Amino acid sequence: MPGQQRADARRNYARILAVAENEVAAHGSGASLEQIARTVGVGSATVRRHFPTRRALLEAVAQKRIDALCARAHTLTGVTDSRTALLEWLGEVLTFCVRARGLAAALAHDGAVSEPAHENACTAALEAAASPLLDRAVQDGAVAPGATVTDLITLIVGITLATEHHPDPADQANRLFGLAVRGLSPRSLAPGPTG
Amino acid sequence: MPGQQRADARRNYARILAVAENEVAAHGSGASLEQIARTVGVGSATVRRHFPTRRALLEAVAQKRIDALCARAHTLTGVTDSRTALLEWLGEVLTFCVRARGLAAALAHDGAVSEPAHENACTAALEAAASPLLDRAVQDGAVAPGATVTDLITLIVGITLATEHHPDPADQANRLFGLAVRGLSPRSLAPGPTG
Repeated sequence: MPGQQRADARRNYARILAVAENEVAAHGSGASLEQIARTVGVGSATVRRHFPTRRALLEAVAQKRIDALCARAHTLTGVTDSRTALLEWLGEVLTFCVRARGLAAALAHDGAVSEPAHENACTAALEAAASPLLDRAVQDGAVAPGATVTDLITLIVGITLATEHHPDPADQANRLFGLAVRGLSPRSLAPGPTG
Repeated sequence: MPGQQRADARRNYARILAVAENEVAAHGSGASLEQIARTVGVGSATVRRHFPTRRALLEAVAQKRIDALCARAHTLTGVTDSRTALLEWLGEVLTFCVRARGLAAALAHDGAVSEPAHENACTAALEAAASPLLDRAVQDGAVAPGATVTDLITLIVGITLATEHHPDPADQANRLFGLAVRGLSPRSLAPGPTG
């Protein structure tokens, strides 16, 4: 039954990917194909048929999360309050980045750190998916024109990097991103020189 | 003449440190004690008498810059416009961080990357020096209460890290920091749900 075999293969693929996500979240660069195979309950050969190398698996995990963020951007573009929609999406990007440190460490461990092309492809996909979300917020006057989705993501990545050794990285990253959203010193807060 | 010798030693120390700053700015982790000695016009032994290891020299370079930033914070605390004074100082911290990437790379190359105690000492010195500057801006209503000097420096460090592979890191870091200062979406920009 080739049809049944294909359905089984698709199911295995999805299960392997889901387990891989958890393994990477828990063990970062220590995630192993063998452990993933054991948890899924299939042989290492089955995992390797879908993902010939550990790196292919890690990239698939990253791609799955990027795809989910793109899908969320499309969904949120339909939400009435454009400011809330944009900030909700950026909050999810921040959560992704904080959690993705393990994934980034794992990919770096595999020598994939110097692949700006791959990074750029991810950023390009997010830029395309979230531009309507940002444009709408700008049109509604909730965001000053001039910033791009890539600017916002770069800011989030920077905050994630600078807070990763904090005792509570997610909380600290959220706090600092909140400061940047409200503005460290927006013009409206500043009185004129005469006070 | 021991007095003269001490004066010569102080002068050599200052010249070695100044040349080391330039060498680190130009060559990052490639800066060598031998090259510094040649440029100053003294023997390697003289350099090593002041700085027994390359790392001791790099730390002295870092300390000199931190001291200069602390002194600037004191000076700027006397400036009338507290918002301008704070933003001026933060701009200088940003410039320092962009330039210090070479220094950080050099220290990391010497295995000093996992020394949070040293980093914390630097941050503590900057926090103490710049707190009056921030407090005054908060009192004048130019900055919302709740942010600490460490928060602002962490944000700047993050922006520096996230932009270091950009073709023009200094320009891009300044742009992104400007976004955070003005606010990605300050409340005042956002209309109510009815537009």
